[in-house]
Amino acid sequence: MSLKLTILGCHSATPRVNAHPTAQILKIKNHTILIDCGEGTQVQLRRYKISFSKIKHIFISHLHGDHYFGLIGLISTFGLLNREKELHIYAPEGLQDIIELQMNLSQSRANFPLIFHVLNGTASELIFEDKNISIKTIPLTHRVYTNGFLFKEKLALRKLDIEAVSKFPEIETCDYHNLKKGKDFIKKDGILIPNNKLTFAPPKPLSYAFCSDTSYKPNIVKIIKNVDLLYHESTFLSDRKDLAIKTGHSTAKQAGEIALMANAKLLILGHFSNRYRNLKAFQLESQEIFENTLLAVEGKTFEIG
Amino acid sequence: MSLKLTILGCHSATPRVNAHPTAQILKIKNHTILIDCGEGTQVQLRRYKISFSKIKHIFISHLHGDHYFGLIGLISTFGLLNREKELHIYAPEGLQDIIELQMNLSQSRANFPLIFHVLNGTASELIFEDKNISIKTIPLTHRVYTNGFLFKEKLALRKLDIEAVSKFPEIETCDYHNLKKGKDFIKKDGILIPNNKLTFAPPKPLSYAFCSDTSYKPNIVKIIKNVDLLYHESTFLSDRKDLAIKTGHSTAKQAGEIALMANAKLLILGHFSNRYRNLKAFQLESQEIFENTLLAVEGKTFEIG
Repeated sequence: MSLKLTILGCHSATPRVNAHPTAQILKIKNHTILIDCGEGTQVQLRRYKISFSKIKHIFISHLHGDHYFGLIGLISTFGLLNREKELHIYAPEGLQDIIELQMNLSQSRANFPLIFHVLNGTASELIFEDKNISIKTIPLTHRVYTNGFLFKEKLALRKLDIEAVSKFPEIETCDYHNLKKGKDFIKKDGILIPNNKLTFAPPKPLSYAFCSDTSYKPNIVKIIKNVDLLYHESTFLSDRKDLAIKTGHSTAKQAGEIALMANAKLLILGHFSNRYRNLKAFQLESQEIFENTLLAVEGKTFEIG
Repeated sequence: MSLKLTILGCHSATPRVNAHPTAQILKIKNHTILIDCGEGTQVQLRRYKISFSKIKHIFISHLHGDHYFGLIGLISTFGLLNREKELHIYAPEGLQDIIELQMNLSQSRANFPLIFHVLNGTASELIFEDKNISIKTIPLTHRVYTNGFLFKEKLALRKLDIEAVSKFPEIETCDYHNLKKGKDFIKKDGILIPNNKLTFAPPKPLSYAFCSDTSYKPNIVKIIKNVDLLYHESTFLSDRKDLAIKTGHSTAKQAGEIALMANAKLLILGHFSNRYRNLKAFQLESQEIFENTLLAVEGKTFEIG
């Protein structure tokens, strides 16, 4: 069981050489998920050798350009690569209009199913679920309607203790599924063998919370409580807390406070303003509150579990 | 008198690391002009240290993404950089809708005058003129409505031959402007001094024609006749002439034929399909027809005059 987060871009606003706007790839169970898609994301995917075809779900936090201007190019490229597989896009209202207007004007259309899921709720809601994972929104407070996303693995089946199982010839292959689901085994003579004598507990499910862009918003803590990995924006240091408040962003210290209150295992800071050259200062500021803080770095993969 | 063309991107369709879609900067007289604006253009401008603030005119050939997906990001960045100066965009109908829809959804607006000039003519027309240059459309044939652009310097004033002028004390500073305009000087005694004894001819005005994307279209030759610098697309080699015809593109050989017929001084090939790894073959194919052929290269500046 592991969860891998690759940073494709972690800077705010205007893209520069080696400072791309927000985009990241989350590998969780059998999913390869793209979160936000700033300009240049498709080139970043190529640079870090991430297979385009594995991406089936894209989550867009909000409609500021540094979080979605790369999407139309990526969709066009999927078309040119003769994609056939469904692509699901979860985004605020309006993005579908933007994409469709551009496709219409270029007289092109996706030959693959392109499915938009409009996000407009103001409370956290379940927006995706299968047998392996669930995904919920984390309503954030920014200058425009914005969501973070909470990705959670589901508890896997228990694992068979083959050595223990082999001691009971009555247990047949067709019983394995019930054992994995946690059921006890009852022998023909009525004697019960408790499940925990025959199986191992599955690994603890992992979770990841993406929170960008947002003002300092302590009431997200209840949604992301005990999260394993938290990406929280820190556009500014505390020296410009005034600007953070004015622009709907957070400071590194505030990100540390959210991580502490949420009892996160690890905090990754990102969405750094271009005004700062020494990013180490973000880590140090957050670590005064929350020790286990790292900085997002383009091309870096954070793996947990 | 010189004309400088810097290639920011010269590849077709899908952007890759070191293979950006179409964008180029033309420096002609006092103008810094952006021609097409594929995804990533703003980062390419930074990479090649071209001042954002000098760009006042942008010309978009057509509404395929590899020629304009970088425009919304560039406009947003102009806003974030507190641009105040006018920005003029010459483009087919629809681009203004695309830009405005995205700005409205992000609740942002340009604080500088953003002026769209809709191109919809089917014959070559004058779309910009000042005392130094003129710009005309070159109607092209592609899958969607497309224009190339012909940029021409105007003939400058004649230059004073200071040594010759100083021999005639009757000539005063206030006469210089008439001399530069080519007028003869008439002395008080009625004797005429011909202008060419007092001035040098100005340098020959230079011209640049941008032709991308287009099918092989010989009737553009009359528009671009005797052009100094011609950029003509060559998406394919002749081995895939069938594909060139089908997709509304040209081969390297066809680009060479256009350059020959137009009596161009220099041909630059670009808009290479990703299917080719050896771009030298484009140059060789064109040179069988037109010797003075070069290849577009990202970051390279071609200077003439």
